[in-house]
Amino acid sequence: MKTELEKVLPSEIERRSFEIITKELGGKKILPGTEAIVKRCIHTSADFEYADNLVFSEGAVERALRAVHKGACIVTDTQMAKAGINKKKLAEYGGEVYCFMSDEDVAKKAKEIGTTRASISMDKAAELAKPLIFAIGNAPTALMRLYELIQEGKVKPQLIIGVPVGFVNVVQSKELILSLPDIPYIVARGRKGGSNIAACIVNALLYM
Amino acid sequence: MKTELEKVLPSEIERRSFEIITKELGGKKILPGTEAIVKRCIHTSADFEYADNLVFSEGAVERALRAVHKGACIVTDTQMAKAGINKKKLAEYGGEVYCFMSDEDVAKKAKEIGTTRASISMDKAAELAKPLIFAIGNAPTALMRLYELIQEGKVKPQLIIGVPVGFVNVVQSKELILSLPDIPYIVARGRKGGSNIAACIVNALLYM
Repeated sequence: MKTELEKVLPSEIERRSFEIITKELGGKKILPGTEAIVKRCIHTSADFEYADNLVFSEGAVERALRAVHKGACIVTDTQMAKAGINKKKLAEYGGEVYCFMSDEDVAKKAKEIGTTRASISMDKAAELAKPLIFAIGNAPTALMRLYELIQEGKVKPQLIIGVPVGFVNVVQSKELILSLPDIPYIVARGRKGGSNIAACIVNALLYM
Repeated sequence: MKTELEKVLPSEIERRSFEIITKELGGKKILPGTEAIVKRCIHTSADFEYADNLVFSEGAVERALRAVHKGACIVTDTQMAKAGINKKKLAEYGGEVYCFMSDEDVAKKAKEIGTTRASISMDKAAELAKPLIFAIGNAPTALMRLYELIQEGKVKPQLIIGVPVGFVNVVQSKELILSLPDIPYIVARGRKGGSNIAACIVNALLYM
C-alpha cells in the first residue's frame, strides 16, 4: 500500500469527508444557502465540477425545503435514484417516492407513441394529485416532456432537480428548464449529473 | 434555448451517445478488450477521466465474462447499485444480485463490533456458496474487509469491481485490491467511482 489508512470511526466518515471537501474548495465562492447541496454532490461523485455547474433558481432551496417539510412527494426517472433516496427520512415529513419507469402501461404507451418510457412516466406523474418534486438524473426526454406539461398547465412542480447525464439533448433539456420563469429548479448545467446526483440532492434537502 | 434539439429516435439514443464518446476520445489509447467498459463508464458519468483511471488485471474481462456466462452472482454494497444492474439480463445467465446493506442482522452486528454495515455485509456475502462478483461502488470499508476475507481464504471472488467514491480511505482501499496477485479486478484508481459506475460495469459485462 502506498498510503496509510486513515483511522476514522464509521460514524465519523461522512463528517471527515465534508471537512476534506470544504478544505479543498478553499476560498471558492458558493451561493449562500446552497453549500450543503453543492458539497453533497461533490461527496457523491468526488467531482469538484459540481462547485461550478449547479444552478439554483432564486429561493429554490427555501421553497424546496418548505415543500419537503409539508410532505411533498418525489418523482424520479430511474429505480436507481429511487433506491438512493432516504425514504425513511422523507416519510417523517409525509412524503414518498414514485418511479413509473418499470410500469407495464408506461412501456406499452411509449412503444405505441414511439417515445421514451421516461417521457410517458412524466405524463403519469402529472396525474398525481399531490405536491411534487421531480428528481431527473437520467433522461433528458423526461425533462423535455416535463417542460411541455408545465407549458400546458398540466403540472406545477414544487421543484425540478434537473441533472440528467449524457451526450444527446442533455445540455439542451437543462437549458429548457433554466428558461422557466416560475418553477424552482436546481440544475447541473452541462453534460454531468446522474441518478446518484439526483438522489443526493434530494437527500441534501432532507438532511438540511 | 441556446442549442437545437438533436432528432434521435429513442432506440438510437444510446448508440448515438457511444458515437459521440468514441469521437471525443479521439486517438486515445484504451486497452483492447476493455473499450465497451470504459465507454459505458463515460456514458454513465459524462466524465472522460474514466478513460484514464480504470485499471484491469490481466485477463480480467475474459475471466469476468466466463464467470457471468456460467451464472455468477453479483454482490453490491448499496441498494442503488443493485437497482441499476440489469437483473433480467443477468437472470438469463442464471445469476442474481445480492445486497445485504439493509438487513437487520447486518446492522446489529456492525453496531456490536463498531464497524460499518458495508464491512459486515461482506462477511455475509462470503458465506454464500456461489461464484461471486463483488461490485463495490460506495464503501471503502467493504473493499478493505473483502481484502481481509480473501487473505483469510474465506472468499475467492470471480471478479472485484472496486469503484467506491469519496475522500476517506477510498484511494487506499483500491490500492489494496490492486495488490492482490490472483484475483481478477476492475478498479477505478483515485477518488472517483460510485454505485452508478459499479452497476454500469456489471451491465457492460452483461451486454458484451
